Amino acid sequence: MRMYDLIIKKRNGEELTTEEINYFVDGYTKGTIPDYQVSSLLMAIYFQKMNMRETTDLTMAMVHSGDILDLSKIEGVKVDKHSTGGVGDTTTLVLTPMVAALGIPVAKMSGRGLGHTGGTIDKLESFEGFSVEITEEQFIENVNTKKIAIMGQTADLAPADKKLYALRDVTGTVDNISLISSSIMSKKIAAGADAIVLDVKVGDGAFMKSYEDAKRLAEAMVSIGKNVGRNTVAVISDMDQPLGLGIGNALEVKEALDTLRGKGPKDLLELCLTLGSNMVVLAGKASTAEEAKVMLLKTIEDGSAIMKLKEFVAAQGGNAEQVINSDLLPKAKYVYEVKSDKDGYISKINSENIGLVAMELGAGRATKEDNIDLAVGIVLNKKRGEKVEKGDVLAYIHANDEAKIEKAANGILGNYKISDSYEDNIPLIYDVIR
Amino acid sequence: MRMYDLIIKKRNGEELTTEEINYFVDGYTKGTIPDYQVSSLLMAIYFQKMNMRETTDLTMAMVHSGDILDLSKIEGVKVDKHSTGGVGDTTTLVLTPMVAALGIPVAKMSGRGLGHTGGTIDKLESFEGFSVEITEEQFIENVNTKKIAIMGQTADLAPADKKLYALRDVTGTVDNISLISSSIMSKKIAAGADAIVLDVKVGDGAFMKSYEDAKRLAEAMVSIGKNVGRNTVAVISDMDQPLGLGIGNALEVKEALDTLRGKGPKDLLELCLTLGSNMVVLAGKASTAEEAKVMLLKTIEDGSAIMKLKEFVAAQGGNAEQVINSDLLPKAKYVYEVKSDKDGYISKINSENIGLVAMELGAGRATKEDNIDLAVGIVLNKKRGEKVEKGDVLAYIHANDEAKIEKAANGILGNYKISDSYEDNIPLIYDVIR
Repeated sequence: MRMYDLIIKKRNGEELTTEEINYFVDGYTKGTIPDYQVSSLLMAIYFQKMNMRETTDLTMAMVHSGDILDLSKIEGVKVDKHSTGGVGDTTTLVLTPMVAALGIPVAKMSGRGLGHTGGTIDKLESFEGFSVEITEEQFIENVNTKKIAIMGQTADLAPADKKLYALRDVTGTVDNISLISSSIMSKKIAAGADAIVLDVKVGDGAFMKSYEDAKRLAEAMVSIGKNVGRNTVAVISDMDQPLGLGIGNALEVKEALDTLRGKGPKDLLELCLTLGSNMVVLAGKASTAEEAKVMLLKTIEDGSAIMKLKEFVAAQGGNAEQVINSDLLPKAKYVYEVKSDKDGYISKINSENIGLVAMELGAGRATKEDNIDLAVGIVLNKKRGEKVEKGDVLAYIHANDEAKIEKAANGILGNYKISDSYEDNIPLIYDVIR
Repeated sequence: MRMYDLIIKKRNGEELTTEEINYFVDGYTKGTIPDYQVSSLLMAIYFQKMNMRETTDLTMAMVHSGDILDLSKIEGVKVDKHSTGGVGDTTTLVLTPMVAALGIPVAKMSGRGLGHTGGTIDKLESFEGFSVEITEEQFIENVNTKKIAIMGQTADLAPADKKLYALRDVTGTVDNISLISSSIMSKKIAAGADAIVLDVKVGDGAFMKSYEDAKRLAEAMVSIGKNVGRNTVAVISDMDQPLGLGIGNALEVKEALDTLRGKGPKDLLELCLTLGSNMVVLAGKASTAEEAKVMLLKTIEDGSAIMKLKEFVAAQGGNAEQVINSDLLPKAKYVYEVKSDKDGYISKINSENIGLVAMELGAGRATKEDNIDLAVGIVLNKKRGEKVEKGDVLAYIHANDEAKIEKAANGILGNYKISDSYEDNIPLIYDVIR
């Protein structure tokens, strides 16, 4: 087999066989096939596409390029959850304790990542002493006894995906449904999930800008999951404005705590219930999403969800007092009100740019080496569709550096669009793909 | 400027600016832009194409990536000739002395190359002692006094093309009219030509398999030439059977000598007159191709062309006696007759495969390190459209290794297609693009 022939085949619009896909993924991982041939094939894939069989084969070839977590020692159906990423996305912190409170095992491997705010691990570190540096044995023991644990990524999961993604990133070959879906799914499958719930974001703050693209991606990932025996459900949700109100690490943790107490933003709760109910159904603990939603709401009402979070934080060395009293979470020195300069209706909040404002305040990392300031960020006070008058507070800036406030305030103001009239017709949940 | 943005731009079907093309060619030549980004761009170009402005810019960027020969010390219009390559292509050896005999300067830089037979330099080395190792001063002096000289390629002409071609060759991005035409034209322009005559071959033995593709390539090259002030004419000619009769080095030299004496194969002479007459017109020595043809034929009739070849061979250290008496050229030990095994009409000779048979006899190089046997090769006795009876000689094998004869004979027989009836309707000259 020659890589050259695979390039020509795909370039000419033909289908690659399973053997050919394994050959190129394996050869690329081992370094026997050079970058320049792979980037050429990737560009050919961009133009000629891959069908679902090829996409599934690519996913599994990447899964087999590295370690595969063995979660068989954990009892029950392990349901993982993944979001394609957005601004103010606090769902994991709300969802996982609710689901675990229902006795469903939550075994998450998580990373820090780059972005507007830190990853789930960074956010959890808002709890003093919290650590994801636990052994695999501890991890499995914790999930079995407490139904929830989160571990930093130690295993070498889907290294082919890592290498391919780095190449795609610099060769203009990111935007292809087969390449995106196989990249996401390979990591989830290698992480040992039995079933997967995906939150596919659509809007200006998401990778997928249009509903059609988001739907194609969601359908592709659900197909891959089914093709390889991992029951998968994808929820397509709005990212045309930030989710919830908080954008920042401790700010999002506080919002998650509020939500678990039944006092969080409505959109965040609704999305968590939609994602969570699908997790509960996939885990076999309810037969319909409606039934599951009732069960999940009960974990808020009876306090079992917040107690589960407390137990989890304590088990991984964190200060559980902060779960009960969120005033003990990291706080910024300055809180500044950003006020509307006119009357009208909020017709748009540019999530992408609002996210960048939070990052510049110190909430996120631009490069791996950057430090995160857990306390800083933004809390929105008005969202899309709301009426405002001149002088109303649109958002609060939480800053530790006074010098950064003015720029941030201008950034927020510039990314709120206020119109004379506006009716918000954008749904929070577009679709659930099963 | 970032290479990444250029890739995305071309991928999305946009036009690259002159500055962008210069940036990528320059960066790639210097090694500041990596192979994997260039191969990705090349594949995007394969799918999205380049327009003539971009193609011309790419050509000139490659020209400026290395040395440009200064032939200004040579008087008159320097007309170069290039063939896209075929089997039994002896035109240069016939053309150049004819044209030089008319007082038109022929200043050729030539290579050895890979292929079924050697390059022009290898063929000329059939003349004992002939050498292309002359200095640039000698070269210019020879062209000014004798109107003809050939020099080995010493200068670093269009190194960007060399690097890009090597990458295209292994990344499935050879087959694109803009990339092919700019590659050919960049080398001709860097070699200092004022005007260029191109022989674009079409057929199974050529790179372009269809007339439509050959025409598109010819038109692209003529456009590039005109866009940069190099008057260019392209002749589209048949390569659906070998040109002339001889395939081999000394065998082709002998055929060229025969042709210069008026005793060569009709197709070879006709093509040489077509190419040559366009060279004469471009050099300003005749106003019409018809007029030029008469002048060229006269150089055969009055012996001035063969005398010019003799003078040229002698000037570069070769044994001029061999020009007069072609029996003195290298000869193979064995000459074997390949006979037809049935009656009928020759409807096809697969040039590509016949060329490979010659190469296996030792006439050509598969790799740069291979040695060429100047004496060996094939001489066809029957060509397309001719009637044959069982037992008639189709071709002669000239071999130095008796063990290779049987395989070669089978190879020749297997690539002659003999039908019950056939009328040859394929023209030798398809078109002349000006």
